[in-house]
Amino acid sequence: MVEKKWFIGVDLGGTTIKLAFINYYGEIQHKWEIPTDKSEEGRHITTHIARALDDKMEELGLPNSHFIGIGMGAPGFIEMETGFIYHAVNIGWRDFPLKDKLEMETGLPVIIDNDANIAALGEMWRGAGDGARDLLCVTLGTGVGGGIISGGEIIHGTNGMAGEIGHITSIVDGGVQCNCGKKGCLETIASATGVVRTALETMDEHPEGSLHKISGEITARDVFDAYRAGDAHATEVVNFTTSHLGLAIANLANALNPSKIVIGGGVSKAGDTLLLPLKEEFDKFALPRVKEGADFAIATLGNDAGVIGGAWLVKTKLMQKS
Amino acid sequence: MVEKKWFIGVDLGGTTIKLAFINYYGEIQHKWEIPTDKSEEGRHITTHIARALDDKMEELGLPNSHFIGIGMGAPGFIEMETGFIYHAVNIGWRDFPLKDKLEMETGLPVIIDNDANIAALGEMWRGAGDGARDLLCVTLGTGVGGGIISGGEIIHGTNGMAGEIGHITSIVDGGVQCNCGKKGCLETIASATGVVRTALETMDEHPEGSLHKISGEITARDVFDAYRAGDAHATEVVNFTTSHLGLAIANLANALNPSKIVIGGGVSKAGDTLLLPLKEEFDKFALPRVKEGADFAIATLGNDAGVIGGAWLVKTKLMQKS
Repeated sequence: MVEKKWFIGVDLGGTTIKLAFINYYGEIQHKWEIPTDKSEEGRHITTHIARALDDKMEELGLPNSHFIGIGMGAPGFIEMETGFIYHAVNIGWRDFPLKDKLEMETGLPVIIDNDANIAALGEMWRGAGDGARDLLCVTLGTGVGGGIISGGEIIHGTNGMAGEIGHITSIVDGGVQCNCGKKGCLETIASATGVVRTALETMDEHPEGSLHKISGEITARDVFDAYRAGDAHATEVVNFTTSHLGLAIANLANALNPSKIVIGGGVSKAGDTLLLPLKEEFDKFALPRVKEGADFAIATLGNDAGVIGGAWLVKTKLMQKS
Repeated sequence: MVEKKWFIGVDLGGTTIKLAFINYYGEIQHKWEIPTDKSEEGRHITTHIARALDDKMEELGLPNSHFIGIGMGAPGFIEMETGFIYHAVNIGWRDFPLKDKLEMETGLPVIIDNDANIAALGEMWRGAGDGARDLLCVTLGTGVGGGIISGGEIIHGTNGMAGEIGHITSIVDGGVQCNCGKKGCLETIASATGVVRTALETMDEHPEGSLHKISGEITARDVFDAYRAGDAHATEVVNFTTSHLGLAIANLANALNPSKIVIGGGVSKAGDTLLLPLKEEFDKFALPRVKEGADFAIATLGNDAGVIGGAWLVKTKLMQKS
């Protein structure tokens, strides 16, 4: 009975590796984390994952054969078909055969995808996507990431770069320098970092603003809290952020016609305080039928999105082979 | 021998209907046109198509069984799975069961898609796409249309609206009114109409410009010809056009990571005179790896793209059923 078997989801981040055993219906049975060991260009990572999985299987008294396979999300430039990592700056990998190594060390079939993509798949399966098969996921964290799903499948593009919506150019002239080398990227505006920067740059224009009363460093959350409380400065910052984000999402939606637009990442914790002004801007720039077709939702799975998306890949891509 | 059978491509336009018999390898065997009869809300169109096909089959002495099916492109809002047309303004159809009607009248299986989409499929199969499976097609004609192909499949979106890249907002404040109801759409700038409008609006600023010497109405072609000849006014117009078009395509490419960007439609006849400044602008705004992955090309099939794309749909979607 294949429905009794479990999937393994692995989500590799720069600080921790999230692992989970997940059942046929996408329910997490066990989850835990291990630290990401970046020493020696990340060469020990696959061994650490294999050991962590073996230890947990032993603890639970489950054989390897109880698992269909491993679905893993990783950062960096990935060749999807071979699970080969060209370059993962945060980890230290360069030309790293991740899939082959992890298969060798675990004895299980492995499928790899980009971390933003598997998070999008997780939200599609068990989160805010609610089964929608045409999904645009936007993650507003330290940076701005994205995952685009069309007809239930991730759009990878020709060399795995699809979904880089953080690098849509929002400000053509005079934008802030972005990590990617360009200027004025959406990421420089709509990430948590961008929201804080916009606030800090305009502090002097609002000497009475409530953000001056924050002790310590201002966070994106402070900005949204002040906006909710009616602060004029924070309102300007939120309007600036949502106008650029709403325009970029509407332009994408006119091209992709998604049924669901899921906003995740730290900034999305603002909930409706973010969604309402964002939707207002989106509505200005989306075609009527595109607008009708698209619902906005805040991501619901948080840090579990990646491991659940990994399990979805195992279920949909590896099941036939097992 | 299924390879000996032919496909039928039909491309419905507001003035003419293009029809073609196409072989297994996408080579046109016979092609001809009939006028589009829009009388009585277009109710006679399917009968006219059926009769045109029957006449040609009789002329050639070919039975119905020589054909696998019909792939047809139509304008308007289409439900792809059922081939039902919600609304096709140019034709007069409203709630028109195109697929069912045409199947009834021809006795052949029919598959319907949007006209911009089948043109993109045609270019992918036999034209400038050159087999690339991640394709962004941009048609610069009276309007600006688009077809997005990912992994060899058209992206339709949740209600068939995907690919409406003409309605990406290029000018947020003070743009020209677009037919869609919004302002500042890419279509108002990069269509033939848009290029001409930009030129006309700036004629007075260039009293010495060569466009003043054109007798009759100025066309987009005149603008590109004057640009090639070094006219300062035309250079301004082309720079304005390509900067907005290049930015919009780069932003889409950052999200979709296409391997091929095919530019078609009347404006594309300018060839390298359009492509070179366009690529320059694109390169400013595309991520390095996105840039590396993407080749620009001018569409090569012209008016045949639609019927060939229709044949591709028959080959890939109807063959199994026949």
